[in-house]
Amino acid sequence: MPQEILDSLEEQVNPKHTALIIVDPQGDFCADDGAMSRMGKDISRMQGAVQRLNPFIQRARETGLKIVWTRSIAVPDKARPSYRARDIVREAIAKGIAFVKEGSYGADWYSEIIKPLPDEYIITKCHYDAFEDTDLDLILSSGGIKTLLLTGFVANVCVETLARRGYIKGYYIVLVSDCTDSFTEREFRSTVYNIENYFGRVATSAEIMNIWESMAKSAH
Amino acid sequence: MPQEILDSLEEQVNPKHTALIIVDPQGDFCADDGAMSRMGKDISRMQGAVQRLNPFIQRARETGLKIVWTRSIAVPDKARPSYRARDIVREAIAKGIAFVKEGSYGADWYSEIIKPLPDEYIITKCHYDAFEDTDLDLILSSGGIKTLLLTGFVANVCVETLARRGYIKGYYIVLVSDCTDSFTEREFRSTVYNIENYFGRVATSAEIMNIWESMAKSAH
Amino acid sequence: MPQEILDSLEEQVNPKHTALIIVDPQGDFCADDGAMSRMGKDISRMQGAVQRLNPFIQRARETGLKIVWTRSIAVPDKARPSYRARDIVREAIAKGIAFVKEGSYGADWYSEIIKPLPDEYIITKCHYDAFEDTDLDLILSSGGIKTLLLTGFVANVCVETLARRGYIKGYYIVLVSDCTDSFTEREFRSTVYNIENYFGRVATSAEIMNIWESMAKSAH
Amino acid sequence: MPQEILDSLEEQVNPKHTALIIVDPQGDFCADDGAMSRMGKDISRMQGAVQRLNPFIQRARETGLKIVWTRSIAVPDKARPSYRARDIVREAIAKGIAFVKEGSYGADWYSEIIKPLPDEYIITKCHYDAFEDTDLDLILSSGGIKTLLLTGFVANVCVETLARRGYIKGYYIVLVSDCTDSFTEREFRSTVYNIENYFGRVATSAEIMNIWESMAKSAH
Repeated sequence: MPQEILDSLEEQVNPKHTALIIVDPQGDFCADDGAMSRMGKDISRMQGAVQRLNPFIQRARETGLKIVWTRSIAVPDKARPSYRARDIVREAIAKGIAFVKEGSYGADWYSEIIKPLPDEYIITKCHYDAFEDTDLDLILSSGGIKTLLLTGFVANVCVETLARRGYIKGYYIVLVSDCTDSFTEREFRSTVYNIENYFGRVATSAEIMNIWESMAKSAH
Repeated sequence: MPQEILDSLEEQVNPKHTALIIVDPQGDFCADDGAMSRMGKDISRMQGAVQRLNPFIQRARETGLKIVWTRSIAVPDKARPSYRARDIVREAIAKGIAFVKEGSYGADWYSEIIKPLPDEYIITKCHYDAFEDTDLDLILSSGGIKTLLLTGFVANVCVETLARRGYIKGYYIVLVSDCTDSFTEREFRSTVYNIENYFGRVATSAEIMNIWESMAKSAH
Repeated sequence: MPQEILDSLEEQVNPKHTALIIVDPQGDFCADDGAMSRMGKDISRMQGAVQRLNPFIQRARETGLKIVWTRSIAVPDKARPSYRARDIVREAIAKGIAFVKEGSYGADWYSEIIKPLPDEYIITKCHYDAFEDTDLDLILSSGGIKTLLLTGFVANVCVETLARRGYIKGYYIVLVSDCTDSFTEREFRSTVYNIENYFGRVATSAEIMNIWESMAKSAH
Repeated sequence: MPQEILDSLEEQVNPKHTALIIVDPQGDFCADDGAMSRMGKDISRMQGAVQRLNPFIQRARETGLKIVWTRSIAVPDKARPSYRARDIVREAIAKGIAFVKEGSYGADWYSEIIKPLPDEYIITKCHYDAFEDTDLDLILSSGGIKTLLLTGFVANVCVETLARRGYIKGYYIVLVSDCTDSFTEREFRSTVYNIENYFGRVATSAEIMNIWESMAKSAH
């Protein structure tokens, strides 16, 4: 029997089978003195998204979602050749900027984001794809998860890679558009466009929290 | 011993370890009477890219590259739930448009593109990711391939998915920018931006053919 | 919510979520004049299993199971280095024995086994693992399959590899012990032991057909 | 260009591209008061293998091999349904035996085995397959590893699963026959048979150390 299809946003974000994924909310992507800021990127957009992400995480906790945090770490001997050949890696090295280096300030969680609780999952990844070389799929499939709420950074890099890969694996993808961002509006918009047209859905945190609230009321 | 890193475009596109990937040059994506055109998309950009892709395929053959063609086929019982829930699939069904259906005109190779030779590889995929559920990696790794020249359609969907996945797997990614396209300039530009900043390199077919020509000369 | 666990054989082999997998019933593994026989292996055990497998396939068809056939094909340019280094490959080459070569008698279905129907799936694999480099998981997961009934050849090679891999992927594994075999009793027994202790369950075709019959009766 | 094939044991175990994998040398598999011993298994064979494994690890370190340790941990919410349905899991629960539980004595390294050094890799796995849901392949492929020397426990379960999976991925497999074992001779022999006939090679630690010694001499 083919699996049942969940058509509506309401069905897809049912807390029973939905996980919140918080991608790489680390100092190097968000902080004023993080690596990206020092390489000239505008991180104010990330800082704004964190302000909206914090209450969404709180509500997801109250609603009982499975919560998964990812963190990027650059490890020289866990890098396939194509990774080490990238310009951004060479540029950072040339400027003497250590990027998401284990143990550094920039690899740590960004100071303004609320922190993982002991029963939440933390995935360490050494590249852009949180599914590859990690136990993310094991955690999700063991828990009967069907839908991924995607938040965090950077929208058009690690978040969109996760959306594309998760969609192919069969997960329903919902980009929480006000809880993620890119360094520019243009990059952010391309991710929104690609996901809503090809890889899943886009919704705001308010829309999703409203659905959860309605569900909780109708359950009484 | 860590693997040797190929830094320059010259090293990366060496015919000894480079494959040309031609993504989904099918009627439904390129032809005037294909599904995408009938759904209102502008396919003239694709038709232009095919004119530049044809001589590039010829040169790649003369240069001895491994050549892999992919084709998309929609098969109802080879579709994970997330695939069947997408709006584009429902919209096509609602309009009575059969999309890349096996045996149909639209699933066949686009009339204006040169056709695969018997010793070239054809990958049939039932979703956007030519690596998942196929033997693409087996073909490439068995042949000692390190670099993928990406061409074909649609740039921001199947081509960019291939770029992201291939990069994570360790292949050097080179988007051949004049031999691929999207339905709009904006979508195309986002793929060019993402690949050149994060997943590999972007080069024109002329640049790559010049490198091959120089190599051939210096080999004499 | 963690997924429901199916404890009993009855629950696991429910036709609604069970697929029959028939591994490599090809001439080279089963026929008197196939490659294995010519390399000195005793294929009479396989021939006996085919006699019991045929009625089991018929019953699985009547019961409405999803049915997947696999076939091995040796393709020189679809072989990773470790494959080509094996003694058995070199020995066959040295003896001038072409092994599961596309288009040959030995690669074709064994003459005594009933043949696939048009709506059944055929997986071509170039090594021992029917999950790797194929769309087997796509077919199974799209169809809501939870349990794999494993039959065919060779028990301790391709069948046990499938059992181990399928188990790790989360499928319930049931080896149909009288519908598979190895070249010797000892090899066959080691597979039965490993699967029933570590990777799933072992049952006879009669036990499974009895369960299906009871289910059909109680459904009236 | 197809990849070069390494035919001989000498070529395959060249330290430049060889990793030593030490599978699950934990108290629950090896210690007198570990879980397996308490469930009635004979762990004396494991204890003997550890005596031979210790000097082999030392020599591998002196020879400069990449060294990877794996450890099994049972985590209830990192277990796909098929895992939780197994008899051995239920039996342990029924007997009140906690099996490889994080933080327990039995999950820790076995007291008699030498311990990992800070620059060696530790893979934590929640099932039998050290490649699935881990970064083992990332570590190996980043380091240019072609050959896996397999040691540790249990030979016919986690070690053979690793051999089968590693072989399919393209690694040369060498089972170090005196540095691994099963609870019985029969189980151990089936693994030796399967690996040497189908998935790679079998050699003793002495044979391999002799090759390394000859290489070192001829390098002077």
